[in-house]
Amino acid sequence: MTPAPSDTLALAIDLLSRRSLTPADAGCQTLLGERLERLGFRLETLHQGEVTNLWATRGEGDTLVLAGHTDVVPTGPEQQWEFPPFEPTLNDAGELCGRGAADMKGSLAAMVTAVERFVTAHPTHHGRLALLITSDEEGPAVDGTRAVVEQLRQRGERAQWCIVGEPSSNDLPGDVVKNGRRGSLGARLTVHGVQGHVAYPHTTRNPIHQAAPALAALAAEQWDAGNDHFPATSFQISNIHAGTGATNVVPGELEVVFNFRFSTEVTAETLQQRTREILDARGLEYSLDWTLFGEPFLTREGRLLDAVITSLEAVTGRRPQLSTAGGTSDGRFIAAGLGAQVIELGPCNATIHKVNERVRAGDLDTLSQAYEAIMQRLLG
Amino acid sequence: MTPAPSDTLALAIDLLSRRSLTPADAGCQTLLGERLERLGFRLETLHQGEVTNLWATRGEGDTLVLAGHTDVVPTGPEQQWEFPPFEPTLNDAGELCGRGAADMKGSLAAMVTAVERFVTAHPTHHGRLALLITSDEEGPAVDGTRAVVEQLRQRGERAQWCIVGEPSSNDLPGDVVKNGRRGSLGARLTVHGVQGHVAYPHTTRNPIHQAAPALAALAAEQWDAGNDHFPATSFQISNIHAGTGATNVVPGELEVVFNFRFSTEVTAETLQQRTREILDARGLEYSLDWTLFGEPFLTREGRLLDAVITSLEAVTGRRPQLSTAGGTSDGRFIAAGLGAQVIELGPCNATIHKVNERVRAGDLDTLSQAYEAIMQRLLG
Repeated sequence: MTPAPSDTLALAIDLLSRRSLTPADAGCQTLLGERLERLGFRLETLHQGEVTNLWATRGEGDTLVLAGHTDVVPTGPEQQWEFPPFEPTLNDAGELCGRGAADMKGSLAAMVTAVERFVTAHPTHHGRLALLITSDEEGPAVDGTRAVVEQLRQRGERAQWCIVGEPSSNDLPGDVVKNGRRGSLGARLTVHGVQGHVAYPHTTRNPIHQAAPALAALAAEQWDAGNDHFPATSFQISNIHAGTGATNVVPGELEVVFNFRFSTEVTAETLQQRTREILDARGLEYSLDWTLFGEPFLTREGRLLDAVITSLEAVTGRRPQLSTAGGTSDGRFIAAGLGAQVIELGPCNATIHKVNERVRAGDLDTLSQAYEAIMQRLLG
Repeated sequence: MTPAPSDTLALAIDLLSRRSLTPADAGCQTLLGERLERLGFRLETLHQGEVTNLWATRGEGDTLVLAGHTDVVPTGPEQQWEFPPFEPTLNDAGELCGRGAADMKGSLAAMVTAVERFVTAHPTHHGRLALLITSDEEGPAVDGTRAVVEQLRQRGERAQWCIVGEPSSNDLPGDVVKNGRRGSLGARLTVHGVQGHVAYPHTTRNPIHQAAPALAALAAEQWDAGNDHFPATSFQISNIHAGTGATNVVPGELEVVFNFRFSTEVTAETLQQRTREILDARGLEYSLDWTLFGEPFLTREGRLLDAVITSLEAVTGRRPQLSTAGGTSDGRFIAAGLGAQVIELGPCNATIHKVNERVRAGDLDTLSQAYEAIMQRLLG
């Protein structure tokens, strides 16, 4: 006889069976909200565009936010999946298979069952416990956490600590936690030249020729040396385009798209300034259109990091490795908007966004215990 | 009462009324061939692909080739023309208006009437007089003069002198003659990198970053200093493309298209060699696909240039300016294939390829006299 699934696994299965492709939530938040409401949480549903967001709080004072998303990325070719992606299945290796198992319905289930145990044991806990759940993390990420944080900020809400359930782990649950993320700054550079016939170069100004030394200089620039927490800021050109295909025409314009992933040693403003200096030094005529995708954030030693490390040591017997690698996450909005220390702690990320996404069922129980232990240390 | 049009003008009007868009000849060569046959020319019609070419010769020995094309470029928006482009019209300024008036049915008419007067006056002229007329100069220029010259070369034909009727003049007929053209060498460069996520640059090799210093070096290179006849060799990038549009992906390949317009101070081989050296010195992984569009040619002082200059001085009272500027022309094939000295002499080029293409009717008569005088000096 198969043992009954744990509370966390049962809830994860319920969530995974819902086809919540960004920005759809497919009823996940209603399901989670009902369980939180039963614990005495005050619920607030914030609709923004097509996105449903849930803000649930219990208690008053110093606030710990548990943050996550119910939306998932597309499945890719469903016929390549061993099990249908929205029919959650436990395979022979004890892994829960389905889209969102690791990113991140599994963490959401682990968070909610942790909250249930913690609140039951500490009905009059210190401070405030909050859940911020969005259905727009995998998409534009505009109407989700960012919008919720902006509304909270405008009414003066603050938070001290935040755990984001993003899949931070490599091989074992909690072996890696993210205590920061680099910033991301993008730009579209248009270099203006003068179009003309290749045979009459004196009547033209070739924007590719103008730009080449400047692009070489940008690519060679040492923007910073990084620090103990961040690798050096990197600059990458992702797109470059000029010319209509005709081989005898000098094009009039060159378009270049580039991106900085930057550490806390520089700011978006200084990167913009130094980019302009490099372009100006080469006499380019250009326009620049910047997009700041996210400021870097870093959670240094402090109560949150202490609580996370000691909880993981207690639950898993291992000290987690701290990392700031990888792309951006919703953590940036919570850090910037609510002034919170932010840590990302979630399951192993080996299968996220791939076919046959899965997570060891036991890992979800371990994570749930870790989340509970962290609550205990901060609000217990 | 309007004076009767000159023979040249009448023939030009007949040619201009034929809609001979490349590669169509629309009967022009038949018309010209009949007039040449009457003078005792041996006609040879060479079909190559869709192209009709006429090779007509009279006499034996040292050969003067008069070369031209019956095809014309498209009209552009016909409603922008003052007169319909294929209904040749003499305007109030005494200009013959129509597509091909200057490029180059006008010169063809002037050549044929010059031949008629010359042969009538010198029925037993020295050497050989030849006309090479194609309908593929404005298009791919593969099945036209190039193919004819190749056939002639294979059967051992040579020519000493050639006049191409391309519109060489600026303000007055014969004020500029072209005594050479630069070579044209094209290349498609593919720089191979390693694709990946912008956030993980250590796993990628960005081909744009790799290429930028090499492209800057190519653009800054002094390939030669030119000489008395040619400007310095020029290098121009016409197209550059990398990236799929996604702003978070380092592309795996960069494509660059560039072109040399080169003087007689370098060769295509040395340009290829030096390009590879510049790319290799920067450690690029790349492939290069070269196309030699044309070798440069130069007609120095000699019997042809003497004949052209003294004829123009006699007919126009002005000494022509020599130039090697501009794009490529069919002259390159005749110089290379038949070993001929080549001069381009034709009407003013201000309106070629534009709407309202036109030429002063009197200029065609002047040109016809000049062509006749040149024949006189070389074969009289």
